[in-house]
Amino acid sequence: MSKRIVVIGSGAAGMSAASAARKASKDAEITVITEDEDIAYSPCAIPWGIEGRTGWDDIVMHDPEFYRQSRGIEVVIRTRVESVDGEKREVVAGGRTYPYDSLVVAAGGTVFVPPIEGKDLGNVFVVRTVRDGKNIQKALEGAENVVIGGAGVIGLELAVALRDMGKKVTVIEMMDQVIPRIADRDMADMVQMELESRGIEFVMKAPIQAVKGDGKVEAVTANGKDYPCDVMIFATGVRANLDIPKMLGLDIGQLNAVIASPTMNAYRRGRLVPDVFVAGDLVQCESAVMPGATMSQLGSTAVRQGIVAGTNAAGGKRVFGPVASPWVSMIGDLQIAGTGLSLGLASWYGIDVVCGKAEGLTRARYYPGGKPLTVKVLADRSTHRIVGAQIVAGEEATGRINWLTSAIVDGRTAESFLADSENAYCPPTSMVRDVVLAAVEDLCLKLSQ
Amino acid sequence: MSKRIVVIGSGAAGMSAASAARKASKDAEITVITEDEDIAYSPCAIPWGIEGRTGWDDIVMHDPEFYRQSRGIEVVIRTRVESVDGEKREVVAGGRTYPYDSLVVAAGGTVFVPPIEGKDLGNVFVVRTVRDGKNIQKALEGAENVVIGGAGVIGLELAVALRDMGKKVTVIEMMDQVIPRIADRDMADMVQMELESRGIEFVMKAPIQAVKGDGKVEAVTANGKDYPCDVMIFATGVRANLDIPKMLGLDIGQLNAVIASPTMNAYRRGRLVPDVFVAGDLVQCESAVMPGATMSQLGSTAVRQGIVAGTNAAGGKRVFGPVASPWVSMIGDLQIAGTGLSLGLASWYGIDVVCGKAEGLTRARYYPGGKPLTVKVLADRSTHRIVGAQIVAGEEATGRINWLTSAIVDGRTAESFLADSENAYCPPTSMVRDVVLAAVEDLCLKLSQ
Repeated sequence: MSKRIVVIGSGAAGMSAASAARKASKDAEITVITEDEDIAYSPCAIPWGIEGRTGWDDIVMHDPEFYRQSRGIEVVIRTRVESVDGEKREVVAGGRTYPYDSLVVAAGGTVFVPPIEGKDLGNVFVVRTVRDGKNIQKALEGAENVVIGGAGVIGLELAVALRDMGKKVTVIEMMDQVIPRIADRDMADMVQMELESRGIEFVMKAPIQAVKGDGKVEAVTANGKDYPCDVMIFATGVRANLDIPKMLGLDIGQLNAVIASPTMNAYRRGRLVPDVFVAGDLVQCESAVMPGATMSQLGSTAVRQGIVAGTNAAGGKRVFGPVASPWVSMIGDLQIAGTGLSLGLASWYGIDVVCGKAEGLTRARYYPGGKPLTVKVLADRSTHRIVGAQIVAGEEATGRINWLTSAIVDGRTAESFLADSENAYCPPTSMVRDVVLAAVEDLCLKLSQ
Repeated sequence: MSKRIVVIGSGAAGMSAASAARKASKDAEITVITEDEDIAYSPCAIPWGIEGRTGWDDIVMHDPEFYRQSRGIEVVIRTRVESVDGEKREVVAGGRTYPYDSLVVAAGGTVFVPPIEGKDLGNVFVVRTVRDGKNIQKALEGAENVVIGGAGVIGLELAVALRDMGKKVTVIEMMDQVIPRIADRDMADMVQMELESRGIEFVMKAPIQAVKGDGKVEAVTANGKDYPCDVMIFATGVRANLDIPKMLGLDIGQLNAVIASPTMNAYRRGRLVPDVFVAGDLVQCESAVMPGATMSQLGSTAVRQGIVAGTNAAGGKRVFGPVASPWVSMIGDLQIAGTGLSLGLASWYGIDVVCGKAEGLTRARYYPGGKPLTVKVLADRSTHRIVGAQIVAGEEATGRINWLTSAIVDGRTAESFLADSENAYCPPTSMVRDVVLAAVEDLCLKLSQ
């Protein structure tokens, strides 16, 4: 009998798992169950969809019909999972029972909305699904004042999109810098200045106290002051969605997410569960930088985990390594990227870091069109291991951060990186000595002092 | 007494050595001796200078006065070294004697011009110095037909520059593909097609047989046919300039370049010469990919070697690692980049390689402005180690090739790269699963077959 594989969730993790399962097994019966109506899209695309820079139909990569026809995968949309029985190996959803041999739980995360007065008023949104995006787009018609709760990368990308649409945009952030936790203040400040120059207003160190209005939002209160508001969007971070894992009694870790083996199997009371796999935003990862757990709620991580979970669910063999979690965001004309530990994350681990930094250009100094490029690299003071890096640049940040990620995962010290690292060079695409090397040079100097 | 350091050569290697020596020692007497009149520029810039995209004054980073004033370095220009005595530790140049405690030989390379009839006619050039560039620029005034000998990256960059200036450009290449040796035919063909679409003509598998003319070049003969020619430019590769190393009796390696220790010291009859350092195009490197020697005549390599040589010449401690030699070139609207072994280089080592390849975009599929991106990755069939990679892309090739270089230098297998490699993602700067990962995925599949 062919293997029955059920995947819960249709985001990057779930659909990657389903497709990988098909690659690993020609005859498995593969069913994806999802509450969503659109499948196989990246939530990261939503700010650009709202702005109209990309069409909603383009963001959604494929529809259920495509999966049925070309991959032999059934996708059951708009369907909530009511219960899962790990003993009987059954999922009940939309009144139907789906027996499974392997189950992939990729139910994602939910946007955390602080429990404040007025959060359920009309025109108050989160950004997670294409449906959210479309609703926001509609609400924005005729709206003048928009408040964004949270200055993380999604909040800032949204802020730029809405500002470009001509809205008056106010970003309210609890911490004292934008992109808190994963970016250091010096790098984050460059981004905040860019956004302020576009007329975006920031209210910092200000937890949102209330959302006010009569049916619909009219103002948002922070720091004791009311900010006029026609549309309010919470971009306040994602929490693992633990509904299904709890039904299955899966082990939950320190970071309030599901613990996974390198094969993406879940655990129950300390034992590996061979027929249950997990992937995506509800998973707690192992850090490639420091011993211990870390969260990696990124689309790229979800895809990689989905492939491993799906392959193994279908009987293949694949392993998922520890993560440094490189990220990048395009905020206005600036790209900001990071990997491994920031100063904030380092202090969470209790380790003492030394920073090196360099500024330069993305092209040879004399070649037209070069953009400013700032690279910061962090090393553990005791071992000299590179533990993190951040980049702010007008272009070409992504490849550089992947390059530094590779050094972190490989356990390179600053000194060995400097001795062994080479950069490709031609005047239109880099400086002869890349700014990454210059930053590590500075780091080595600081480490030797 | 302060240390006397003499540097021969004022290119990327020589000037980096001089500056690094100053950083390592505040009181060293540092003298640079050079035949050139312009110093501290990248020969890679010359095609863009000829086209006028960048001014000659911008390409030349600093003049001797700058080095004297701000770094305390004497630069003696337009001066040929007549002799070097390694016993007495003296350089004689321009009739003066320069005693040294440490000598850095960074005399670079010379363009190889095949010994054919007419190669010394008027309007026949090589591309090496800013002076060459200015002379070519002058000769191009009123010229209609230009022939470029050699379809390496400099030859192709020149071809585009001259075509953009409205010239009729013919590239004559001995081998049967452009960018031979370091690029594979499938990748090189994409570049050739781009250039042909711009009206550049290629004559392949055609050694240049003669340059004809009366005083000035009028035609170039290849494959028995005469191509009309007002300006002829040889871009036929660089040979190590061994004049000074031979004066010093330094050990020359298999690749006809100077053998260097990891500290960039030279050898004489198998013994390390503690007071002579070498850097740049005249050096033979160790390969990071396969045991054995390799050439790395790149500006970025020259700078890295110069820093190591100069630091150590001044009494510091720095080491230069083996090289994978990543390179990149912007040819028209295409970037082509490579690292480690190509198929051609692999066959030189006698090793059997397996190739993985993937095509995609530089941005999310739905995000406007994304450009085609092709990534090819090569692994050794016996060990599965990644040994090389090539990229053709409309943008963002450089960071990706540095990333893959890091994997090669770290000795990653294809499978471990796939398990452990992460890519940063946001729609405007990459696909959610970077094409690099997709290419390595394909490679793993091929390796398992």
